[in-house]
Amino acid sequence: MNRSSLGLRIPTGMRDLLPEEMAVQDQLEGEIVSLFKLWAYQKVATPSLEYGACLQPDEEKEDLFYKFFDRQGHVLVLRPELTTPIARMVSSRLKGSELPLRLCYSSDVYRTESNRHQEFRQAGVELIGSGDPLADAEVIALAIESLRKFGLKDFQFNLGHMGIFSGIMDELKIDTEFRLKYEERLAHKDLVGIERIVEKSKFSDSAKRILLRIPHFHGQAEMLEEVLDWSQSLSLQEAVASLRKVYEYLKDFNVQEYVALDLGILRGFSYYTGVIFEGYVRDIGYPIVEGGRYDALYGEFGYALPATGFAMNLGALAERMSPQTKPCPEVLVYGEDVSQVIQAVQKLRGKGVQAEMGIANLSAAEVEMIAKRKGIAQVKRIE
Amino acid sequence: MNRSSLGLRIPTGMRDLLPEEMAVQDQLEGEIVSLFKLWAYQKVATPSLEYGACLQPDEEKEDLFYKFFDRQGHVLVLRPELTTPIARMVSSRLKGSELPLRLCYSSDVYRTESNRHQEFRQAGVELIGSGDPLADAEVIALAIESLRKFGLKDFQFNLGHMGIFSGIMDELKIDTEFRLKYEERLAHKDLVGIERIVEKSKFSDSAKRILLRIPHFHGQAEMLEEVLDWSQSLSLQEAVASLRKVYEYLKDFNVQEYVALDLGILRGFSYYTGVIFEGYVRDIGYPIVEGGRYDALYGEFGYALPATGFAMNLGALAERMSPQTKPCPEVLVYGEDVSQVIQAVQKLRGKGVQAEMGIANLSAAEVEMIAKRKGIAQVKRIE
Repeated sequence: MNRSSLGLRIPTGMRDLLPEEMAVQDQLEGEIVSLFKLWAYQKVATPSLEYGACLQPDEEKEDLFYKFFDRQGHVLVLRPELTTPIARMVSSRLKGSELPLRLCYSSDVYRTESNRHQEFRQAGVELIGSGDPLADAEVIALAIESLRKFGLKDFQFNLGHMGIFSGIMDELKIDTEFRLKYEERLAHKDLVGIERIVEKSKFSDSAKRILLRIPHFHGQAEMLEEVLDWSQSLSLQEAVASLRKVYEYLKDFNVQEYVALDLGILRGFSYYTGVIFEGYVRDIGYPIVEGGRYDALYGEFGYALPATGFAMNLGALAERMSPQTKPCPEVLVYGEDVSQVIQAVQKLRGKGVQAEMGIANLSAAEVEMIAKRKGIAQVKRIE
Repeated sequence: MNRSSLGLRIPTGMRDLLPEEMAVQDQLEGEIVSLFKLWAYQKVATPSLEYGACLQPDEEKEDLFYKFFDRQGHVLVLRPELTTPIARMVSSRLKGSELPLRLCYSSDVYRTESNRHQEFRQAGVELIGSGDPLADAEVIALAIESLRKFGLKDFQFNLGHMGIFSGIMDELKIDTEFRLKYEERLAHKDLVGIERIVEKSKFSDSAKRILLRIPHFHGQAEMLEEVLDWSQSLSLQEAVASLRKVYEYLKDFNVQEYVALDLGILRGFSYYTGVIFEGYVRDIGYPIVEGGRYDALYGEFGYALPATGFAMNLGALAERMSPQTKPCPEVLVYGEDVSQVIQAVQKLRGKGVQAEMGIANLSAAEVEMIAKRKGIAQVKRIE
């Protein structure tokens, strides 16, 4: 039966990877997974489908997940990320492993975002069982090394801390309603919008001054001194100390030049508790790397452990990379005697030569033309 | 918020891949994709989600698909196989490519089968644009070479032809109702069941004799002579000639020893039209390789081309392979001076050594014990 026009299309946000596109993504994946292993991370995979109860205990919250129901009426979700599924896995089958545990992955993730791919390859690491700033520095340095390995130079990481932003908000006694409006504008770097709501607000002049200053807190370690002037709260002092330590270690990893402190960055997933970071690559308008410390997530699975990690949008990076030449075999083998052709082509493959076998009985001129159109450099006629 | 017990579980039929399991599957995947490329196949990927209208134009039919609805009410399906999605892709974005076109893939597929994994890695090839028996022989030989490359010896391929079974059924004027009952029992090799329904049937003695004989048609090329005695129908003659040709070519590929002719094999997907085959590996009760010729599928997408190919259940093979030793780094680097440790570990990684950095400040005895438990052969203390 013929397909309807719908049957010829792919669902919104999905895409095919043609040979040249696939080759770029496979190359990046091979390079990054090798690097992860060099840094002692072990590769794992989690299922494409998880129970909603695993990914999102708070069912009320709006999200960007692909959801449906299984036959028992449970909510199933196509994994939107791997940090939570890995926490589930570590809290069950890997419980009791020697800590810290270093795991990595490269898997497709699914989100119902408009204007972007809704399925894309994501590669990332999780460092589980250490609360030390050195662990945060390690994963940030690894993210930066990954981009360097891809040959990228034009990228920038912003580094912040959940505790600093929250600490200031608490210190200034900012109500939730205002905070949400403020965060939304901050996430979009909407400076005009921030100015408008701050000016109209009922807060003290000194509070207003800080609220207007936060979006501009982007730079080197000196700005942390100013933050310490605002507040004496212990949690904020600790957050600043921890952020400072991570930033220092990045110098030892020789990657500090790629990193700026930014107290206004906010991460999409709610599980982050400490140092957070995002990496931008030129000409891509959203973070290509997202990560940070999430010390509360494992406790939710009954296995309280500190953890940190990052995820990189490998699909978007592959799309941005200049397309390689179309992958194609090295030689096209043909001839009239099929047995001889088979044996000749098999012999070449035995030597590691990528060889295509001519199937139709074609003239030398036809074969030359085909090889040229396919980009196959060599033609071999078997007499 | 804490996860409910459901949040700690994974959905029915899904599974995690722990480091040692992942390492085996990754190794098989790397080997098979290299082999596919050696044979001139180019790797592609299709989306995890397809419209139901692409995969299954006949909505009435029962199936094993994961289905749900998008916001517009269209049926979405998690890909149960890649042959049809690749036909969709070739009929749109790759239309007009030089033929024959050789494509390969290694992707997860999803089926709601009970008693088996409902998500598993499948690797396969499609040879599009040739109706020649040599094309069928190429893909069968490639499937066999793949299993050989994995170091397997105990496997067996059965080779049949859709046209022979159908030709005989038509010749004998077997009604659909009986045929379905017969096929079901044949698929399960239920010889007693076949005997029961044939004896009770209203067919002639000679028809009954053939119906009882078919399940035993398993062996070498000689048995094809007997089939030709039964029928003079042109389509059956052509099917036998084509099957014979494929079988002969397999000798040239040096893989004939792994193949037996079997006129009773039936394939699960309805798109097969010509030569069909299945490969069994010892101790796995279902075919690990399934494939054949499907000359009508592309026409359904408005791009009539003959095609042949196979798919291999890589997940099941990886599970069967003896688990490797747990992948782990080569050296654990530690010491009191963090800067020095970072620089030392980075130097090792720069030389290609898989190196883990000790994060906590531990004694030499503690580090030795950790390394032993993790299986790390070497420990390096930085003074």
